[in-house]
Amino acid sequence: MASKKNEKKSEGLSSALRVKAGPVDLSSFDPRATTGFSGTKEEGREALAALAPEVSDWQERLFAEGRKGGERSVLLVLQGMDTSGKGGVIRHGAGLMDPQGLRITSFKAPTPAEKRRGFLWRIRQALPAPGQIGIFDRSHYEDVLIARVRNLVAAPVWNRRYDAINEFETELAGAGITVVKCFLHISPEMQKERLQARLDDPTKHWKYNPGDVDERQLWPAYTEAYEAAIEKCNADHAPWHVIPSDRKWYRNWAVTTLLLETLQDLNPEWPKADFDVALEKSRVAES
Amino acid sequence: MASKKNEKKSEGLSSALRVKAGPVDLSSFDPRATTGFSGTKEEGREALAALAPEVSDWQERLFAEGRKGGERSVLLVLQGMDTSGKGGVIRHGAGLMDPQGLRITSFKAPTPAEKRRGFLWRIRQALPAPGQIGIFDRSHYEDVLIARVRNLVAAPVWNRRYDAINEFETELAGAGITVVKCFLHISPEMQKERLQARLDDPTKHWKYNPGDVDERQLWPAYTEAYEAAIEKCNADHAPWHVIPSDRKWYRNWAVTTLLLETLQDLNPEWPKADFDVALEKSRVAES
Repeated sequence: MASKKNEKKSEGLSSALRVKAGPVDLSSFDPRATTGFSGTKEEGREALAALAPEVSDWQERLFAEGRKGGERSVLLVLQGMDTSGKGGVIRHGAGLMDPQGLRITSFKAPTPAEKRRGFLWRIRQALPAPGQIGIFDRSHYEDVLIARVRNLVAAPVWNRRYDAINEFETELAGAGITVVKCFLHISPEMQKERLQARLDDPTKHWKYNPGDVDERQLWPAYTEAYEAAIEKCNADHAPWHVIPSDRKWYRNWAVTTLLLETLQDLNPEWPKADFDVALEKSRVAES
Repeated sequence: MASKKNEKKSEGLSSALRVKAGPVDLSSFDPRATTGFSGTKEEGREALAALAPEVSDWQERLFAEGRKGGERSVLLVLQGMDTSGKGGVIRHGAGLMDPQGLRITSFKAPTPAEKRRGFLWRIRQALPAPGQIGIFDRSHYEDVLIARVRNLVAAPVWNRRYDAINEFETELAGAGITVVKCFLHISPEMQKERLQARLDDPTKHWKYNPGDVDERQLWPAYTEAYEAAIEKCNADHAPWHVIPSDRKWYRNWAVTTLLLETLQDLNPEWPKADFDVALEKSRVAES
């Protein structure tokens, strides 16, 4: 089983998209790449739909394990610039699974009460329970991204947070939470196109915020902050993946495949009956 | 718009499955009925899948409204005997929607801390936020069902709870929460078949609990408790529906159709832009 596990890790899409240790230069990653997939857009969509039965089955196994005393869970962390598609991945990828086994949290700017409790407090509140797949739309990484770019806290404060995050994620690994971190990588040109599309479609106006353009002006500073976060917090037990996200269909397929590989790697088994099956069969028959 | 609303309510599946005011006799409801659907099992499954785009679209409208200051939400309450398919409805019906807009809570036996706070406390904790569709797998009704059948509290205590529930649900209506209550109605023969199926399939053993057979012995007492709950707590603003549930495909289609009708009846509109669209278009173009 250990060897099967290693084999899996070294061959899948996870390892192909995994960011290697060392300095990170996002300009060396192509946001239009389709790593690990050779088909067309239409084939990509079909491939995503075809993952549904398998990913649902593994999800249910993990869920069943959690119901019967297992402590393991999965946490998918989604980060990326505005319009990179965090919500789209949840809708089209996580949407293939049973919503009963998901715990999805979308983090907005922290409230004053949340700030007083330290930046990891609200994150801990939202962790997946045993058997669940947790999904973070934004996360504790915002506290070294927007907090750094916008000077929301002093430099020594955000600087200490990288260590705090590493300690926190080590703790999660010890608690049976498998953390999978994905940076949805888009080009500034694609962001412009998507913001324009939102403005052109009245049914998408609610998704648009004039502040998005202000953030967009800070693209280089955000890129630098992402590079620092990915480099400093990229442990084996909580690896970063760069997901090429200019093509929505590839992005959705890739993140869902990562989730599937993670579940396969955990390899949860159907819990054994904790009762006498023959006896229960006769009790039901007589009832 | 008011007349459109009334028309909807009087014609849809909701009104056909709605329990009329007055005494309730569950034996008068056929658990194998397929009210409002004339096709085969295969056609029923196709009809369910075909609801996905429409129900997702309405869900997103409600979600968008909630993001822009709207206060409305929906709460689907699922009750029924063991194996009636509360989980199946969530998996196959709610599973058609974007999981970001769902808040699903599965209620187990209350903990001592929950009991001390009164039976509605934990229910209030789990209410949907504005724009969300909340789903309860079991609910506050357990406090007049198992609590009554199993004498978990004295008769005067559970007897007072019907009024408390009615007051609570009136309050929810006032808070913009549209409550839709569904009793998944199965025959005792179908329950037996499903319990046997669970025992015959090792991948389903985790769903089986020997206590289920003990509960099954109390079928008549549970039926009586359901009839009382449905009769006493069946207000226009929080109506009960009996969903024939011996056929899984019909049950999933029916509850999803009820949700769809509820969303259509709320008729949330895409929020208007709260910014100058032309100005933002030029800002994006120049960025």
